[in-house]
Parts: sequence; C-alpha cells; structure tokens
Amino acid sequence: MFNGYQEQLDTWIRHWLQEDVGAGDVTTAVTVPQGHMSRAVIHAKQDGTLAGLPIAERVFAVVDCSLHFQAVAIEGQLLQKGDIIAEVEGSTHSLLTGERLALNLLQRMSGIATGTAEYVQRIAGLPVRLVDTRKTTPGHRMLEKYAVRIGGGANHRFGLYDAVMIKDNHIKAAGGITAAVQSARAAIPHTMTIEVETEFIAQVHEALDSGADIIMLDNMDSTNMREAVQLIRSHSPHVKIEASGNVSLDTIRGLAETGIDIISVGRLTYSFHNLDISLDLGAKKKE
Amino acid sequence: MFNGYQEQLDTWIRHWLQEDVGAGDVTTAVTVPQGHMSRAVIHAKQDGTLAGLPIAERVFAVVDCSLHFQAVAIEGQLLQKGDIIAEVEGSTHSLLTGERLALNLLQRMSGIATGTAEYVQRIAGLPVRLVDTRKTTPGHRMLEKYAVRIGGGANHRFGLYDAVMIKDNHIKAAGGITAAVQSARAAIPHTMTIEVETEFIAQVHEALDSGADIIMLDNMDSTNMREAVQLIRSHSPHVKIEASGNVSLDTIRGLAETGIDIISVGRLTYSFHNLDISLDLGAKKKE
Amino acid sequence: MFNGYQEQLDTWIRHWLQEDVGAGDVTTAVTVPQGHMSRAVIHAKQDGTLAGLPIAERVFAVVDCSLHFQAVAIEGQLLQKGDIIAEVEGSTHSLLTGERLALNLLQRMSGIATGTAEYVQRIAGLPVRLVDTRKTTPGHRMLEKYAVRIGGGANHRFGLYDAVMIKDNHIKAAGGITAAVQSARAAIPHTMTIEVETEFIAQVHEALDSGADIIMLDNMDSTNMREAVQLIRSHSPHVKIEASGNVSLDTIRGLAETGIDIISVGRLTYSFHNLDISLDLGAKKKE
Amino acid sequence: MFNGYQEQLDTWIRHWLQEDVGAGDVTTAVTVPQGHMSRAVIHAKQDGTLAGLPIAERVFAVVDCSLHFQAVAIEGQLLQKGDIIAEVEGSTHSLLTGERLALNLLQRMSGIATGTAEYVQRIAGLPVRLVDTRKTTPGHRMLEKYAVRIGGGANHRFGLYDAVMIKDNHIKAAGGITAAVQSARAAIPHTMTIEVETEFIAQVHEALDSGADIIMLDNMDSTNMREAVQLIRSHSPHVKIEASGNVSLDTIRGLAETGIDIISVGRLTYSFHNLDISLDLGAKKKE
Amino acid sequence: MFNGYQEQLDTWIRHWLQEDVGAGDVTTAVTVPQGHMSRAVIHAKQDGTLAGLPIAERVFAVVDCSLHFQAVAIEGQLLQKGDIIAEVEGSTHSLLTGERLALNLLQRMSGIATGTAEYVQRIAGLPVRLVDTRKTTPGHRMLEKYAVRIGGGANHRFGLYDAVMIKDNHIKAAGGITAAVQSARAAIPHTMTIEVETEFIAQVHEALDSGADIIMLDNMDSTNMREAVQLIRSHSPHVKIEASGNVSLDTIRGLAETGIDIISVGRLTYSFHNLDISLDLGAKKKE
Amino acid sequence: MFNGYQEQLDTWIRHWLQEDVGAGDVTTAVTVPQGHMSRAVIHAKQDGTLAGLPIAERVFAVVDCSLHFQAVAIEGQLLQKGDIIAEVEGSTHSLLTGERLALNLLQRMSGIATGTAEYVQRIAGLPVRLVDTRKTTPGHRMLEKYAVRIGGGANHRFGLYDAVMIKDNHIKAAGGITAAVQSARAAIPHTMTIEVETEFIAQVHEALDSGADIIMLDNMDSTNMREAVQLIRSHSPHVKIEASGNVSLDTIRGLAETGIDIISVGRLTYSFHNLDISLDLGAKKKE
Repeated sequence: MFNGYQEQLDTWIRHWLQEDVGAGDVTTAVTVPQGHMSRAVIHAKQDGTLAGLPIAERVFAVVDCSLHFQAVAIEGQLLQKGDIIAEVEGSTHSLLTGERLALNLLQRMSGIATGTAEYVQRIAGLPVRLVDTRKTTPGHRMLEKYAVRIGGGANHRFGLYDAVMIKDNHIKAAGGITAAVQSARAAIPHTMTIEVETEFIAQVHEALDSGADIIMLDNMDSTNMREAVQLIRSHSPHVKIEASGNVSLDTIRGLAETGIDIISVGRLTYSFHNLDISLDLGAKKKE
Repeated sequence: MFNGYQEQLDTWIRHWLQEDVGAGDVTTAVTVPQGHMSRAVIHAKQDGTLAGLPIAERVFAVVDCSLHFQAVAIEGQLLQKGDIIAEVEGSTHSLLTGERLALNLLQRMSGIATGTAEYVQRIAGLPVRLVDTRKTTPGHRMLEKYAVRIGGGANHRFGLYDAVMIKDNHIKAAGGITAAVQSARAAIPHTMTIEVETEFIAQVHEALDSGADIIMLDNMDSTNMREAVQLIRSHSPHVKIEASGNVSLDTIRGLAETGIDIISVGRLTYSFHNLDISLDLGAKKKE
Repeated sequence: MFNGYQEQLDTWIRHWLQEDVGAGDVTTAVTVPQGHMSRAVIHAKQDGTLAGLPIAERVFAVVDCSLHFQAVAIEGQLLQKGDIIAEVEGSTHSLLTGERLALNLLQRMSGIATGTAEYVQRIAGLPVRLVDTRKTTPGHRMLEKYAVRIGGGANHRFGLYDAVMIKDNHIKAAGGITAAVQSARAAIPHTMTIEVETEFIAQVHEALDSGADIIMLDNMDSTNMREAVQLIRSHSPHVKIEASGNVSLDTIRGLAETGIDIISVGRLTYSFHNLDISLDLGAKKKE
Repeated sequence: MFNGYQEQLDTWIRHWLQEDVGAGDVTTAVTVPQGHMSRAVIHAKQDGTLAGLPIAERVFAVVDCSLHFQAVAIEGQLLQKGDIIAEVEGSTHSLLTGERLALNLLQRMSGIATGTAEYVQRIAGLPVRLVDTRKTTPGHRMLEKYAVRIGGGANHRFGLYDAVMIKDNHIKAAGGITAAVQSARAAIPHTMTIEVETEFIAQVHEALDSGADIIMLDNMDSTNMREAVQLIRSHSPHVKIEASGNVSLDTIRGLAETGIDIISVGRLTYSFHNLDISLDLGAKKKE
Repeated sequence: MFNGYQEQLDTWIRHWLQEDVGAGDVTTAVTVPQGHMSRAVIHAKQDGTLAGLPIAERVFAVVDCSLHFQAVAIEGQLLQKGDIIAEVEGSTHSLLTGERLALNLLQRMSGIATGTAEYVQRIAGLPVRLVDTRKTTPGHRMLEKYAVRIGGGANHRFGLYDAVMIKDNHIKAAGGITAAVQSARAAIPHTMTIEVETEFIAQVHEALDSGADIIMLDNMDSTNMREAVQLIRSHSPHVKIEASGNVSLDTIRGLAETGIDIISVGRLTYSFHNLDISLDLGAKKKE
Repeated sequence: MFNGYQEQLDTWIRHWLQEDVGAGDVTTAVTVPQGHMSRAVIHAKQDGTLAGLPIAERVFAVVDCSLHFQAVAIEGQLLQKGDIIAEVEGSTHSLLTGERLALNLLQRMSGIATGTAEYVQRIAGLPVRLVDTRKTTPGHRMLEKYAVRIGGGANHRFGLYDAVMIKDNHIKAAGGITAAVQSARAAIPHTMTIEVETEFIAQVHEALDSGADIIMLDNMDSTNMREAVQLIRSHSPHVKIEASGNVSLDTIRGLAETGIDIISVGRLTYSFHNLDISLDLGAKKKE
C-alpha cells in the first residue's frame, strides 16, 4: 500500500475483526486459560508468490499490540510448499482471535500475486505493462491493487476520483467523444489525465483529435488493433495505448506484440484462487 | 441475509462506495449533463444461479433513493446467458456511480451460488447438508453465507460468537477434549452448542464421553470415517456428525455416503469464479 | 466479557466518555494545575459482590494510557464496607475526567452481581441454572451478562443472532409450533438451537413432537409445570427445560424444585440497586 | 430531549439495535413469512408515569421507516394498569426486531419518571427544585435527564462541559476555594456559572467571598444547613443554594423546609425500578 | 462538488452540526413552542459571488428533511447587497438549529468565490489557468476547491492520492530529480501524472530530461521564468508549466504574461474574507 | 482546549488526515526510500502570536507515534520572523504525510491568536472582556476558541448546548422577552444562564424585569448604549452587559469606554489571516 494508508487499513481491520468476533470469541474464552502463551507458525501449504505479510502483521497488532510478529519470508518471495512465512508469539487468546482474519487476507492477497505473476511471465521482455481494473472486491481495493504490484503487475486508476475514464455510456450522454473530452478537460485539474474507451477506428480518430491522453482499445480484433496502434503512434506519439477485453494466459502475448503500452485484465482480482496458507500453534519457545 | 441486518449492510455499502467514489466520480461529473436520465438494464453474460439481487437493489438505493429498481429475474433463478436480471431507471449520474459496486457484488454472490449449486447437485437425494466455513472474504461474511443458502447449501456458524468449536489448538491449551468441553459447557448459554474437531477414533470416543453436541471428523480416511459414524450413532444418536477437509466435486458424493450429517467446504467462498453480469445504459423509456 | 470483545468495549467507553466530557471537563481544566499528579483510591461504601474491575481499568486506560491502575480486590470478591477495590495513580486531570464513568459502570455491574448472588444462594444445591434475559440496558448487554456470571448466574442467548427463540408471536405468524420449528430447523446452522416458549401442556406436546431443543414453560402454575417436566423427561430426555415468569427471591426455590433445568429472571438486569462505591483522591505517594 | 438531539439519539439507537440484532434476527427471519403484517399494541402492566414515548417511536422509525406508530397515551400521563400506550402497524419482521429495544427504553424511562414523581410529590408546595446528578447510565444521560423532567423534576448540569462544579478534589488541587473560583472565573465564558461544594460553614464563607454563583451544602446536618442558608441569604441574596447527600422519600420534605433552592438526588437515575410495559401483536386491522 | 461526494458531505455536515448542537439547542427548545412554523429568508448584506447554495440546502435537509428550501439566486451569481439568496420554510426549531452552520458555510464559500473572481478578472483574455493549492481548511477541501471553480478558477490536485508532486524534500530524499521521477513513473498508474517543483534553470533541464509531465517554477524571478518557459516549450511542447509563489492581485497579470499555463495561489483558500450573508425569520406565508 | 477534549481532537485529526491522504501519499511512497529518516524544523516566516503547538504535536503523533516532537517556542509566544517553533524527527514518510495538515492548523490558529491580540491591545487597561462568537469554522470550534484565549481574549458560549441566548427570533416565537425568559428559566438547569439580545431601551427594561442574567446591546449607538448601561447598573448590578455589532480595531476602545463588561467580535474567527509558518526537512541530526 501507499504511505499514509495505514490508518484506513486499521479501520477496515477493525470492521473485519468485529464481523468475525462479534460479541466475543466464545470458544477461546471458555477453553483456553487466561494468560496462556503460544508461538504460532504461519507456513505455506502450496507454491506461490507471497503477498500481504505487512497486512497480516497489522491484523495481529490491531488484535493485541503485545503480540510479537516476526517475518521469516519476505514480501513477494516465491514460496515453496512448507516454507515458513512468519512467527507470532504471545497471548494464545489473541493469536486465536486474529488467526482467521490474518489467514483470509494473506491467502487472498497471495492468490492474486501468484495469478498476476503468471500473466507477467507470459509477456516477459515486451515493453508492455499489465494492469488491474476496478473489478476488485468491495473493501479490498487498495490491498488487491497492492497484491497485483507485488505479483509484478501495475495499477490502473485507484477509483472514480483520480482519473477520467470516458466509456461508452459517458460518450452517449455527452453527445460524442469530442464533447466529452472537451468538457472534461475544462473541468478537471491539470494534473489529471483523460482516457477514452474506443471500439472502432473511427472512435480512435475522434479520441486523437479531441486530445485524449490515453486511448483504450476495447475488445478489438488484431487487425483493428494493429491499425489503431499505427494510427495513434503516427498521430500523437505521446498518447498511451491500453488494450482490454477477455485477455487470457493464452492470448496475452499475442496481444502484447501488437505494440500497445498497457493491458488491463479484470480477472487478476476477481477470479484468483486462494493460496493455501496455514497457522499452527506450538508451545511458546523457552528463552 | 437475516431480518435486521439491513442497517449493517447499508453501512458496509457506504464504506464500499466511499472506497470507489472517494472525493467524487469525476468522469461522470464532467461529462454527463446535470439532470440526464437513463434506464439501465442488468443482464447475464453467462449461465448460472442468480444471488445478490436485493443487495444490488440496496446499493442503488444508498447511492440515490430516487432511482427506481425493478427486478426482472428472481433470486436463486437459474440464469441463461442473455437473461435480463433487473432494470434501474433514474439519474444517469447515480446509475454510473453505483454501477461498479452493484456489479462487483452481484457477480461475486452469483458466482458463489453457482458454485454451491454444483456441489449440492452431486449429493442430491442423500440426507446430508452442505455447509460453508469461516473462510469468507473479510467484510462479506453474511453476504457470502447468504449466497451459499441461495445456491442450495446451508451455513456453519456465523462467527466466533454464536457457537463453540473446539479445535486442536483449544484442546492442547485446555489440556484435553474432556477438560475443554466441560469448561465450555459450564460457561456458555444453554442455547449454545459445542462442536469438537477430531482426527482419530480415540478423540471421537473422548468427544462422545465429554458430551459434545456435534463431532467433526477432520480429514479422516473413509475407513476411519465409517468407524467413527458407527461409533457415534450407537453411542449418542442425537449427536450430529460433520466431515471436513479437501472435499471436491469428485469426492463429495462418496463422502456423503458414509452416513455423516454435514459436509463443510471452504472453497465455496474462497475459490469461486465471478458470474459475468453486465449493465447497459439506454435512453430512458418514454411514457 | 469474552475474549475479543475489548475493541468493542473501548468503542462504547469512548462514546460514553464523550457523553460526559463533551467539549471538555471545564472545571478540572480551569482549577487543577497542568501536570498535577494524584493517587486515587476506589473503595466500597457498602457490602456486596464486586464486578466490573477490568472495565473500570479500561475506562482509565482509554482516558489516559499513562495512568497506573492497580487492582486491590479481585473480581467476584465479596466486598465489605470500607474495602479498598483499586488504586489509580497519575495525572489528576485524567483521574477526574474518568472518575464518574468508571464509578457509574462499577456500581451498576457490582449491583447486578450482588443481586444475582442473592438469587443463586436461594437455589444452592439444586441442579438448576439461573440465567438472565434480553431485558438489559441498551449498550450494556455484554457487561450486564458478564456481571450476572460474576454473581454466580449464567447467560441466556446474547441477542437475536445466536439462537432461535420461538415465542407466541412467531408461532401465530408461522401458523403453529410445528411449522415454526420445521422452517427454522431447515434454515439455521446445525450449530444453532431452537427454544420454544409454551404456556399450556398442549403446546409442550407440540414442541416435543416438532423437535425443539429447549422448551420454555412460561408462567405456568406448579401443577402444570410438574406435568410438563414429567412429560418432557419421559418423551425426550435430552431436551432442556427452562421456566420463566415473575420469579422472586421467595418463589425461586419452589420453582427450582419442580425439576426444571434453567430459570430465567429478567429483573437480574433491570431492577438492581447500584452498589455504593467511591473514589477519593489523595496526594501522590512519594517514591 | 432538547431540540437538535435527535441525530445523536438515532446514532445511539443504531448502536443499541446492533447490539441486540447483530448479524440478524434469526428467529423472525426463519419463522415469520416475508411480507407478514401485524398491529402491535403497547400497554401498561403497572401504574406509573409514562416517559419515553417519542423515543420508542424513534426506535421503530429507525428499524423501519414504513412502520406506522400511533401514540394513544401522552407523554407524562399517569398510566393505570391496562392502559394502551401506543399502537404500531406494519411489517411483523420489523415490529419484532424493534420490540425489545423499544420496551427496554420505555420501561427504564417510565421507571425514572415514576420514581421522580414520588419525590416531587413529597415537596409539593415548597419553593424548591428537585434535580438529578451525573450518576446516570452511560449512554442514557440525556434520556434519563429528560425522564426526570417528565416526572416533574429538573436537571443539574448535563455534563462536564456546561458548568463549573468545584468539588473537594478540585479545591485541594487548586489550593483552596478562593484560588479555584478565581482561576475558574478568569477562564470560563461569561455565560457559565460556578458552583462550589461545601461541607462546613467556614467553606460557605469562603465560597461566598470568592463569588460563587451556586453553593452546594453537602451532607450537612440540619443545624448547619439552616445556619448556612441564613448566612448565604444575608450575604448574597442572588446566590443559589443546593443541598445534596443521602436524600430519601422520608427526609426530603424536612430538607426542603430549611429554605434551600435545589435538592439533588442521585438515586433518581440509578436505583429506579422498570415500569412494566408490554407489546402484544395482533392481526393487522382490516381497513 | 463532484458527483458521488454527497454521502461524505452529509457525514461532515452531521459532524459539524453535532459540534454546534451538542446535547441540544437549549434556547430554541425552551422558548419556541413545539410545532411553531416559520419562513426564513437568506439574503446578501454585501456584494460578491454566491457559492455554496447546494451545501446550505443539504445542511437544512440533514437537520430536518421536511424543511422546504427554495433557491432564489443561482450558484455563481454576482450578488448585490440586499439580494435574496434563498427561502426556507418549515419548523422554527429546525430552522434555528441549522441557521448558524448553513450561514458559516455559505459565507466562507462565497468569500472564496468572490476572492477568486477578483484574481480571475486580472488575467482575463490570457491563456492561463488560475488554480488553488492544498492549503485549504481541514475538513473543507472539496468545498473550498468547488468554491474556487465557482469563482472562475480551476483546481490543482485534490490531495496526496491523485497526482505525484515532487518537491524539494522528495528530491533530496530520492537523490535527485531524475531518480525521483523514474522511480515514480515505474510505480504509479499510467493514468497518473508527475509534476516537479523547480527553483533553478538547471532543475528545469533535469525535470525535462527525466520526463516530468508538469513543471512548476517556484518563486522564480521574471528573467528566469521567461528563460524556463522558452526552454520547456522548445524541448517538450506538451509539458505543462505552472508558476507559484507569493502571487498577488498586483503581480498576477505580469506573471501570466510570461507564457506559463497555470498559476497556483494558496491564499485563494486561506486568506479570504467571509461574504456577509444573513438569515431572517418571518411568519410563515399564508397560503 | 479543555481537559478531556483530546479524544475528540484525535478523531477530527483522523478525519482531516484522511481528507488529504485518501488512498495514500503516492509521491512520498514512490520517491522516498523506506526507512528514510529526517529532522524537520518548523519556523515562523512572519511576526505574530503562536497558537496551536499542542495541536500540531497531536497531528504528528496521530500520523506516526514514533515521531519525536520537540517544542522550541512556547504557546502564546510573540514570534518574530525566523523563530524556530518546533523540531520533529523520525520517518521522512510520516513527516511529509503530516506536514500539510499540521501547518494548515498552526497557521490558522496562530492567525486567529495574532488578530485577537491586536484587539486586546486596543482595550488594554479597561475592565472589559473581548469574546468570540459561534461564527467559527465548522469542525474547528474548540480550536478557534482556544486560539482566541491564547491571543488574550475570552470565549462566549461554546455552542447551542451550554447557555441560553434569546435572540430576536426566539422573542418573536415566544411572544415577548418576558415569556421567553420565564419559560427558559423554568426548563433549564439552575447552573445555566440566560442572555437576552436587545436593540432598544424598552427591550432592556423588559429583559431586566424578566430576570435575565446577561443583557446584550446589539448594534446600539453610543447614546443608547450609555443609557442602557446606566439603566442596567442601577436596576440590577449583578447583570452582565455585552455589546456586539460591527466592532473594528478603530471603534473598540470607544465602545469599551461606555462601561460595558463584554465585547463580542465575530471576525476574530472568520476574517483572520493565516500566519506564515513553514516546515523544512533536513538530514537527521547525528547523535
């Protein structure tokens, strides 16, 4: 995540803990003696890319700031089954109360990083950037975008607030690409960019003429895409080109080779598989 | 969801909207004229089980209570590609601001319901109940458990607060199953039940003797599982039997046929695939 | 309270402090010099059962984490007038700002524990459990239920979310006990129990046949109650029997002797008398 | 309550509802059919003074704004057992979800108003004002102070923020009454008053000389109290005199007759008895 | 404000109302009869540009949604002393409770719009954009930036989250402009721009070579500024040029004539004068 | 601020930080290396009265509690251009994230203190008190009132909740001053005072007869004001006299010499000029 986000992350963690804990962790309260201490080991049960270590650390810190969290693996590391990720020592009550949330986050984020890394590998060596979309899990936007970065990808805009993205619906309501881009340019900060989504060559022409900063080629076939790329490069070399639409592991390299700058892939954040990660409690190490 | 949860759901929706919208939906604000009205159609782009319709309706209501949401499909319906799910009419600004969150939720919940329905189909006709776990997405617990019900499954406990679930770690800390169950029984409300997780037949014996209400057979092979079932049925017929651990579409029927009562499957809520659902804006219908 | 509830408790404490402190403790700010230090002694001005010590400790910690709280008495102790309960040292400003809230909570919780202990004493030696109800003070549910436990009682369900309790109104709306229990059983987690409230023997019959886990005998006279107990024991020995309705210190033993398992008493949490507890400031001990 | 407090009241109501409802009212959700409508009647099961009617109305409005609440009794009315207080019509789900919170508040507030009215009756005809203290239930300060007014009493300050109340501890820390009053007077708004708590005649002298606006006579015997009253009246006729300390129904008239202006009684808000009030659901009236 | 911000605006309004109202508007509660209705007229007592009308409307709506707010003037209108801005009808209690907050906001926002308009007038006819900074009042960022737009100005970035702005401190920590821009470009979304703050021509060279999107000339004298403009235009025509530093009404036109694109002025939002606006209550119009 | 307000202040600081930081401080995150440490120096760029030092300290503590804040100047000090105010050492990330908010607050509060001090100087030696009004910036009420105190002024009431202030609108709705004061006196705590706003001598007579504690002379000319002062002093010597309305630096001394007790000036908090204060980062001091 970016600097300064921790306060918000902690707020989300508190909401998420309350969802699981509610009026209290009854089982732990009534079976584990007060003051019981343990050492927990978090380890991988599957190969993959680790993401979420600092988030798991925050979960335990929010649950109980006296827990001692010691990372063993490092963020972004290619884990192998059996690798130890971290150790956490302290109150057994606190460890068990925070366990599920920490694992749920770590497994999801590592799953996203692992999936992203597979896509990134397919386009190795090409001057193209793999990015995510806004199809993230509600409440997990910044964590999932961070996991994409850990997996070697990059991010599209963070939300509706930090870039203009003119899609089909905006074009219709504004009365055309030109009108939409012009009214946007007049109203937005000079620090903000305008991306236009196009489906046909004619739209690419209009987007170029209206002065778009980024042009997205949405679901174009490869003939159209190559024509669009050539058109844009010759007309406005500093305009960035993004391609989108049903990109898979099989098709991504071909797409990248059309000469575009950016490929956006929604499934990075909505069709991942959790990476299997587990927490085992042991007796607290003697000192 | 259950009656009375709506207040909390609305709170989550507000947090999730703020995540996406932040300081405002700039694109819509600067391209779509004030007062522009549209009719949006939500439709399926894939076959699957619909879940989340009332949640999508709440998203649009929280964004702008003057939007008119009209369900066309019904919750739990088996959608076919192209089916219209709902129509929403009103301010184009509000429709576009709420679109992404509504779809993100609808796609995830329908994905869970669709996946659950596949598992349920495999155990059709058997007196066994398919349930979820606490391996849900943080912040989405009640929605995902609801989607499991829509898909034909049932729920395990909602969180740490509504049932006692004594696992390996609790047993170790308490000094054995008997001690754990006894101290739990003394401390919890008479309305609350105690489930004990067992891995060996010896543990099943101890759980039975200690008076557990539910016994979970965790990752047992089929021989041990059949022995455990027989033992429990003969010793305490009213004790419920749950099985858990690496259940797949291929293995679930065999597992169900061992005579257990409940099968819990974590991947119902952590390895689903979004169901592809889309929203198209059209001109507002003339009246 | 149960493990994991502290985050919520702290939130309540912050709300409650803000209620009292508002824009600031003007008196202390304008009369007590900055940096003034004191030692406060909390002591009993009446005999009774102490409850709420860890909550008072949290109040002072939330007000000012540099205050040093030292318990002298122990939770659940039978206090005698004059007994010292705790000492708190640190900033006089913080001590005076937190004093009233800490005492208001300690007095109420000790009042509940003291009252509960009186009831518990009356049923000493009988195999019956005294429990509270949902007639608690809004915002104080978990604290009051905890105080009941400290006083020797046990708890009924925590809220509407952790057990099914089918009352007269549900029965009417569902079209009978059988319909209500059946639709409940199908919809709830296997970890959750169903209690049915009955007023007549015929209802007890129906509750038994429908498979209720707990049967409440509401306001029955002793003849009916003995008949109901006999009926339930012979029909379904594992069904628990709860009695409720206008139980007083005078009547509770007779009621307990009918052979029921649980007696629920609303007035444990709504008609208690505060236990008189006071805080005195002294000069800070020299070291 | 006072004008403008409703927003905060609604916030408390939402917190209190969440405490009871949590993840949902399971019983109602699984036994009462969707769309079931009822008419609820709230009635008194005991004689007493009604307080809290508008608060009960808000509870139902927060739960479900489509419920129709019709007051039958009026706030402050002397209820007789059996009197109907209000009727509420609408969704049975919503009625049952809000019932307990509405009753818990109505019973407590009416209990306070009823108890206050008893004290007020004892001082009928005397030029003295009965007031409450800050010994209120955390979270219920404004509701309980309002209930005291409904019962015929008046209020002391609302919290630490709206008046200066110099007690023994402040006097010690400030180095005497004179120092405390002077530093307070210099620092507080000219709209704010200063009350000084005194235990001896010498302190009354000092409080008068320092310019206190209100002098409290704390736990003085009747001889001292009469002397203090005479002293204050002759020295500073516009200074108000408050008496406090172990006031009971038996002693209050004698105390009032000493010529003081105000009597403060903590037990108005901490040792009341709930007034027994009940809600019955009936079929919805045909129209 | 931008589309979708209203939910957050309402949250700020609720916080601000609570600040003023606290435990209630005592004066109104105890002097104005329940149910008293009035018509309030909001009018200008000074010439200036109106900004904040929709915000004032929201304040009254949040206080009491039954108030009827009727705008008379339009947002951005050049008000003359005596002009009626809006009329609000309804409960006198609600009108008086909301009055101060509505006026405080309207006066500040109109003050900012009025001051901005003065600056804008000075650069009339020149191809330059006047923008604000992050030196806004905490909590009022989006409102003040909106008021700047109403006054004819434009906005700089909204916060730390929506654009990269590399200042002296970042340059030092990163080890130079080139290093800072490169590491930024690699890490940020392709939709996000990079602005570099420069004080000397040498820094301008480095910023150009590193590929900055926007170059800020900070506090340069006019000779340096003209040289910088010429350099940038010839090197990278699509790079935007911003000037900043002690801009006043007297110096802004000269600065604009150097050929820069954007002038940022902090005092637009931190040294404005409230526009004097008042609310008068009258009897409610008869119908 | 007053004792006990810090919890609320921290809440405001968190809201204000989130406004600026949003999803993260991108620039710092992507240009400043993890773990980079700095020493920041806060210094005055203009002469004036320092106010807000403890608030700036809290901002840095909320951002990152490991930052070390060392005040160099003292609150209320008359700063000269170049004076060092404070030094802050620690994580460069945290320093840069908190910088803007800390400065925005410090500049505004010092601006208010500086402006207040100018007014106070004009009435030096006269027995009159300069006070603020409720025309404060929403969200900054307690900070601005505190800054007024630092500048040598005093405060009017804090909000609508802590004093009765009967204005023209209340008088009209109540049916006259006498009715308004009487109904207020009966309903408010004995600790609360009543101020009446008057415009004519006749109203002053009525306010005196009704028993107001404070009389405000609103916008009276000096003849009327002197007559009013004489009338009040002779009739009720303990009634306080406040004057209000268009007070400027030029007119305040003349006004003060009419013999009134209090002068309230709205512009103390709404037309101040920020005091120019700056933060420079340097290398961290070696130790």
